[in-house]
Amino acid sequence: MNKLIHGGDIYTKRRTNADSILDFSANINPFGMPDSVKQAIIDNIESYTNYPDPLCRDLRQALAVYENTNSSNIICGNGAADIIFKITLALKPEKALLIAPTFAEYEEAINLVNGEIIYYNLKEENNFYIEADILNYITCDLDIMFICNPNNPTGIPMKKQDLLIILEKCKENNVKLVVDECFIDFLIDEEEYSISSYISQYNNLIILKAFTKIYAMAGIRLGYMLCSNIDIVNKINAIGQPWSVSTVASKCGVAALKEIDYVQKTKRYIKENRQYLIKELNTLGYKVFESQTNFILFKTKNTNIKDKLEEYGILIRSCSNYRNLNEEYFRIAVKSEKNNEYFIDSLKKIERQSE
Amino acid sequence: MNKLIHGGDIYTKRRTNADSILDFSANINPFGMPDSVKQAIIDNIESYTNYPDPLCRDLRQALAVYENTNSSNIICGNGAADIIFKITLALKPEKALLIAPTFAEYEEAINLVNGEIIYYNLKEENNFYIEADILNYITCDLDIMFICNPNNPTGIPMKKQDLLIILEKCKENNVKLVVDECFIDFLIDEEEYSISSYISQYNNLIILKAFTKIYAMAGIRLGYMLCSNIDIVNKINAIGQPWSVSTVASKCGVAALKEIDYVQKTKRYIKENRQYLIKELNTLGYKVFESQTNFILFKTKNTNIKDKLEEYGILIRSCSNYRNLNEEYFRIAVKSEKNNEYFIDSLKKIERQSE
Repeated sequence: MNKLIHGGDIYTKRRTNADSILDFSANINPFGMPDSVKQAIIDNIESYTNYPDPLCRDLRQALAVYENTNSSNIICGNGAADIIFKITLALKPEKALLIAPTFAEYEEAINLVNGEIIYYNLKEENNFYIEADILNYITCDLDIMFICNPNNPTGIPMKKQDLLIILEKCKENNVKLVVDECFIDFLIDEEEYSISSYISQYNNLIILKAFTKIYAMAGIRLGYMLCSNIDIVNKINAIGQPWSVSTVASKCGVAALKEIDYVQKTKRYIKENRQYLIKELNTLGYKVFESQTNFILFKTKNTNIKDKLEEYGILIRSCSNYRNLNEEYFRIAVKSEKNNEYFIDSLKKIERQSE
Repeated sequence: MNKLIHGGDIYTKRRTNADSILDFSANINPFGMPDSVKQAIIDNIESYTNYPDPLCRDLRQALAVYENTNSSNIICGNGAADIIFKITLALKPEKALLIAPTFAEYEEAINLVNGEIIYYNLKEENNFYIEADILNYITCDLDIMFICNPNNPTGIPMKKQDLLIILEKCKENNVKLVVDECFIDFLIDEEEYSISSYISQYNNLIILKAFTKIYAMAGIRLGYMLCSNIDIVNKINAIGQPWSVSTVASKCGVAALKEIDYVQKTKRYIKENRQYLIKELNTLGYKVFESQTNFILFKTKNTNIKDKLEEYGILIRSCSNYRNLNEEYFRIAVKSEKNNEYFIDSLKKIERQSE
């Protein structure tokens, strides 16, 4: 059952009588998959009989325009998670630096190649911000470092100027830096945080991105990475089967990249609704961390709220299996206004009952 | 460009003026994807927003019924090729026995974990049949053995009774046997060749199967494996990301398994059309091997036929990059009657011109 360590498990039978589960445990765009992406699935249905293009040429060309880079700097994968594993399988890092807490798959992927892991432990008293002392951890015996920006599950982003100092220190020490920007599209002022445009200047930099969250196509599986280092790109391209990206995913990706307004609308909507949720969670007396993205980490002594919320048909993410967190921490997605209100109303009822 | 070693590359711009490429290089059911599978893609379109079920519960339950086994003996993957890599990553074989020539991904997957490979070389003078001397190669220093049945690219299947002797010898020597039955569904008398029902008796047996070829859904990516050894199953389940199978693939798989008549109709159609192609290729003076499945290996001194056929808009598979084969060997798929006739007519014109 090691495959169920994440959120999004809407498939396990619940104790609830609710007709459908409101899944606050998976951080997906509340607008749902754009109509144009659904239409692309249908319009291309005759093409799914053939093998996919192993080189994803159409999609990489569209991404090259979107990311303002050369298509040779792009590798697509069966979700960003697929690429995380390809990175460690290709580069076989012997020693890696991870932030804790963070997304679990980096650790899984390094363990797969028996790499040693050093942890930079985020401190709650610093609101889970990465501090300047992280530079002391970047030493020449390190092979790779992963930073999730904004971090999962805290939602805390790191400013571009701070990341660039880390990137430079990594370069000096011949350390590869993987920056996972899978949630960065939800930030209003994304350009103050993203360092994806620096791949041409830094050949030790790998940027990870996903269609999963921002285009609400988690069930399709599509992610990509950006890197200008031809040696790294060649090694990662050589890993695994030729057809990891389905034709469905490629067609969806090309359609999704045209959804400029949808992304802008999403950023504003997420900000408003995040502010509402943070305010209400604070009112309930929870400790809420300053997320800038589409999910929120909070802390409460009422550790039974997850079970109680299930009775209301709501699924939230317990963060007890994250390093440095425990059963007092929970993560929720920012969903639609209506769903967010239902969530807060349910939580208020639960809190009233337990008084 | 190491991702283009297989057939099915219809995406590279060709020298042809033909409106569309007739792809004889990929071995896919000529009936195309069943309508019910296309309908399942559309009917479930709202569900692709959510993450897939990491445990593929609905699909594994349907497969359990179809394969008459317990769902705990089933692992689904992003195509059978995904599972081949998961097997070697999980079991880390130090020494493997492969048949040559055979499907290239076994070798790639063993190389990924730095395993040593011993080859059992098929001989053309024996019509590329596996002979009894293969038993001498199965020794206790071996960890794993892969057999593709029927073999790719020869199309030659191995009888159940012969395979069971190999399986028994593997068991005695503590060797895991992976039998890739991805093309076995195209055989009229499949039950004389398949050993998938033996997984409960032999805990060293892994059966690989795919939806790719028989249901013509190569662009969807879906394969699975059968194994009753809980230790092996657990190890393979622990490898890689949780969401390798897309929701699209799971829904297609459940729909495809109901297509009993489609599969029976396919078997008969492939047999008739294979016989036609073999007869015509023989008439052209080519050496043709006795395929029992939906592709045919043949040999000719006219090594330029692949290039010449491209001028007719036809793509075939050169077998020059298969171990023990060379540029005189070609593989073609059995396609629709009309396409097969066009292929033969084109080939006849080419041969007439080169006389």
